[in-house]
Amino acid sequence: VSHAVGHHKQLDWFYFFACILLSPDRQEMTPSKKSPVLVDGVVLNGPQTDVKAGEKFVEETCRLIMEEVVLKATDVNEKVCEWQPPEQLRQLLDLEMRDRGEPQDKLLKLCQEVIRFSVKTNHPRFFNQLYAGLDYYSLAGRFITEALNPSIYTYEVSPVFLLVEEAVLKKMIECIGWKEGDGIFNPGGSVSNMYAMNLARYKYCPDIKEKGLCGLPRLILFTSEECHYSMKKAASFLGIGTQNVCFVETDGRGKMIPEELEKRISEARQEGAMPFLVCATSGTTVLGAFDPLDEIADVCERHGLWLHVDASWGGSALVSRKHRELLHGIHRADSVAWNPHKMLMAGIQCCALLVKDKSDLLKKCYSAKASYLFQQDKFYDVSYDTGDKSIQCSRRPDAFKFWLTWKALGTLGLEERVNRALALSRYLVEEIKKREGFKLLMEPEYANICFWYIPPSLREMEEGPEFWEKLSLVAPAIKEKMMKKGSLMLGYQPHRGKVNFFRQVVISPQVSREDMDFLLDEIDSLGRDM
Amino acid sequence: VSHAVGHHKQLDWFYFFACILLSPDRQEMTPSKKSPVLVDGVVLNGPQTDVKAGEKFVEETCRLIMEEVVLKATDVNEKVCEWQPPEQLRQLLDLEMRDRGEPQDKLLKLCQEVIRFSVKTNHPRFFNQLYAGLDYYSLAGRFITEALNPSIYTYEVSPVFLLVEEAVLKKMIECIGWKEGDGIFNPGGSVSNMYAMNLARYKYCPDIKEKGLCGLPRLILFTSEECHYSMKKAASFLGIGTQNVCFVETDGRGKMIPEELEKRISEARQEGAMPFLVCATSGTTVLGAFDPLDEIADVCERHGLWLHVDASWGGSALVSRKHRELLHGIHRADSVAWNPHKMLMAGIQCCALLVKDKSDLLKKCYSAKASYLFQQDKFYDVSYDTGDKSIQCSRRPDAFKFWLTWKALGTLGLEERVNRALALSRYLVEEIKKREGFKLLMEPEYANICFWYIPPSLREMEEGPEFWEKLSLVAPAIKEKMMKKGSLMLGYQPHRGKVNFFRQVVISPQVSREDMDFLLDEIDSLGRDM
Repeated sequence: VSHAVGHHKQLDWFYFFACILLSPDRQEMTPSKKSPVLVDGVVLNGPQTDVKAGEKFVEETCRLIMEEVVLKATDVNEKVCEWQPPEQLRQLLDLEMRDRGEPQDKLLKLCQEVIRFSVKTNHPRFFNQLYAGLDYYSLAGRFITEALNPSIYTYEVSPVFLLVEEAVLKKMIECIGWKEGDGIFNPGGSVSNMYAMNLARYKYCPDIKEKGLCGLPRLILFTSEECHYSMKKAASFLGIGTQNVCFVETDGRGKMIPEELEKRISEARQEGAMPFLVCATSGTTVLGAFDPLDEIADVCERHGLWLHVDASWGGSALVSRKHRELLHGIHRADSVAWNPHKMLMAGIQCCALLVKDKSDLLKKCYSAKASYLFQQDKFYDVSYDTGDKSIQCSRRPDAFKFWLTWKALGTLGLEERVNRALALSRYLVEEIKKREGFKLLMEPEYANICFWYIPPSLREMEEGPEFWEKLSLVAPAIKEKMMKKGSLMLGYQPHRGKVNFFRQVVISPQVSREDMDFLLDEIDSLGRDM
Repeated sequence: VSHAVGHHKQLDWFYFFACILLSPDRQEMTPSKKSPVLVDGVVLNGPQTDVKAGEKFVEETCRLIMEEVVLKATDVNEKVCEWQPPEQLRQLLDLEMRDRGEPQDKLLKLCQEVIRFSVKTNHPRFFNQLYAGLDYYSLAGRFITEALNPSIYTYEVSPVFLLVEEAVLKKMIECIGWKEGDGIFNPGGSVSNMYAMNLARYKYCPDIKEKGLCGLPRLILFTSEECHYSMKKAASFLGIGTQNVCFVETDGRGKMIPEELEKRISEARQEGAMPFLVCATSGTTVLGAFDPLDEIADVCERHGLWLHVDASWGGSALVSRKHRELLHGIHRADSVAWNPHKMLMAGIQCCALLVKDKSDLLKKCYSAKASYLFQQDKFYDVSYDTGDKSIQCSRRPDAFKFWLTWKALGTLGLEERVNRALALSRYLVEEIKKREGFKLLMEPEYANICFWYIPPSLREMEEGPEFWEKLSLVAPAIKEKMMKKGSLMLGYQPHRGKVNFFRQVVISPQVSREDMDFLLDEIDSLGRDM
């Protein structure tokens, strides 16, 4: 073994090494501690940044955030959004990055504009996505981690956050009903599903890690036709191909039909494909449907298939003794994706992949053993250096914000939130049933309430092609009006042969029955003349 | 087309729908706006959260962060870390999540402990990773996005942040020297490399998206033996297999040898494999080496291969007119990964994949066209709904924090930072050369300064096996001492036949020449008696 001696090649862009001694001890060859040192035209003494100005800016931004975001978050008299079309918004904001920096007061004004024109996802009347509301404890946790800026690959740089992740994973595993398990926080439910798909594939055939898919028979996986679109993205990304995602038929409620699943598995086998994975969904994106996990687990057992449950949305029901029945049988899954950033309001992103296996499968499947990061001769127990279980190198401490909320509210507080969101959903459903011009798509199981608003002009029309054609235009038009007014935001979509309908999602404990009433009044008032 | 009528099956866990009217207008069947409404035992009127307590907690946490993190960040008299082994730290922190929540004062104390035992990655003497330091503007930007909690898939929920991402990508594309291009911010350099690998594969054979790799010849990609470990992770995750990553030989400086690359491509073809991608590295993780991009681009052109440049670490040199020569030829790449969270201090994570193609390749490769999110009948220009280019669904607005820093400092301010970091590196190199007992591994090209500390007891020993054996124990032992003292953090590793050496990384403008002197003094003082 020898050590290389540098060549100084390609270093000609470094101007000569100049120590200009301006101090009285000029004659010394090595500069004293206090003499300015100049290298490449850069003075190296002392820090360069204007610390005071920076600190002041952070402080002023915190004040701005408190005033413009936090304190206004619960005020229903504030607008949900201040709509501007892209071209106009580009004019209103000074987006351009220039050679010279901008003065602090201009920057602060710019931040104010950024807040003004951003959608207030914290607002009690933001119902547009599967996340909403403001959790104060999670937000405080996020501020802490942003300030500390850790990356959680090794215990040496991230001791607290790795222990916190371990504690949160353990608790989530308990909620699932596993005696033990493993897991990893990662950037999104889509990525969690990818993790699970790759893990199931590795379990099915560990050689794939090194040899890849080349030369193997066609792998195939099964999920329902109501699954999240990330299944397709995952299959394509992992080299499996979207055609090898078999979409199993669902019933009228959007739940996978176990008999259909079994049939499709047998068909695939007959066609020479190799089934390796079933992905059930607990809480589908549009309808909020829960697949029958127990029956699906039976099928998986019979066929020796990995069962992954995408509970990104519905997983939070596990903290409610009343509603966890929705996920009955989840303890039989091999892996579970669960996003506390959705109904438990942990802030985007907070997503865990949980794995039942305790034989270190995650690590075996994902490790690359980088010797510069995961040195084995460290002075502490390197089993805490969990970063090699990840597909990422730098990784954010997403468990921490959820942990702080959990500490603040307790499991009972989290349960109360879920119960309240589902009770509010129930209230809205009953109100929709009572009101003329509103029509439920189906009885919801969860917090997704799907319905049409039928304006008076269509109420007498027969439900034929013309009716549906006209109805399909209603939701987009009302959405445009509500956004331009800024009063409310909820989503709409066409779905599996049904024309555009609204999907109302209830999450935040700041939402009240009054907001539900407002929602229906407002839709009626915006759509009445169509 | 018909619409489903709900069955109310599996809803028996919803207790009967009860409107208990406690108000004087008891006889009304529909509750008035003010009557308490109870569903499932939950009162639905008014918001549930204790807003005042929450707001107060956020405010107090902000104060704590200012005092304990922001204001102390530049103080070299503070400890870099307050070391505790895992078992002890678990005792010191109350990690357990219980049924009932904790009082606010206890929570705040807990947050203080979290900060206390966390590594201060902002500290001027944290040199352990490829990120460090505190950028005040980026931090303010992060606070804003955490408070607003956006997800940037559609313009309707994230108008400002999508325009900001577009502006930042455009500017980064300019820095690369492309006339136009596309890109996406994503959670990490590893993920960026995966994006590029899949994109190159899609370009090579678009059918793979749907059909997968089954039945295709063996795909193979080329990178240097000094590449980041994410190449292996990516190849395994994408179903290509780690064996199909061909590691091309490097020269003594850690740079890929283009002639070797060409040879390996031909060999692979002869063996029946299908080359589709070359990944060059601009700024390798350990040595900070820059592959010769121009010569590699020539090879790629001759063989019709996609050229991806992993400039996660080195990309920031592009903002410096003096140092951008390191990446000479980068404009010839098809894709580039660049992490401003490293040398430009944007905060973890801030990582862009940039793509030269402007035929919407990213979207074609990644889109899944979810109809509930990317509706085509929206009232605005849906080309701004860029989320379908991503493998994620929810995605954080990572461009914003970098944009705010860029606005604050200007391109010239960013350049000054890079120049200063590299001048400081140069200073350290020259100091190492002067000092007895310090030995450079090689002349660095960038901000990675790799060196051995040889304690007095080994200085007279011949550089044989025993010497190297003993030297390999020195860096881990010094690392342990410095962490327990909390005075300093820098990394060490064995690397390609060389025993454990220190890797010192200079990034933050708060680092001064005095810190460089301290670093060497401290290592000497901790290792002198070994």
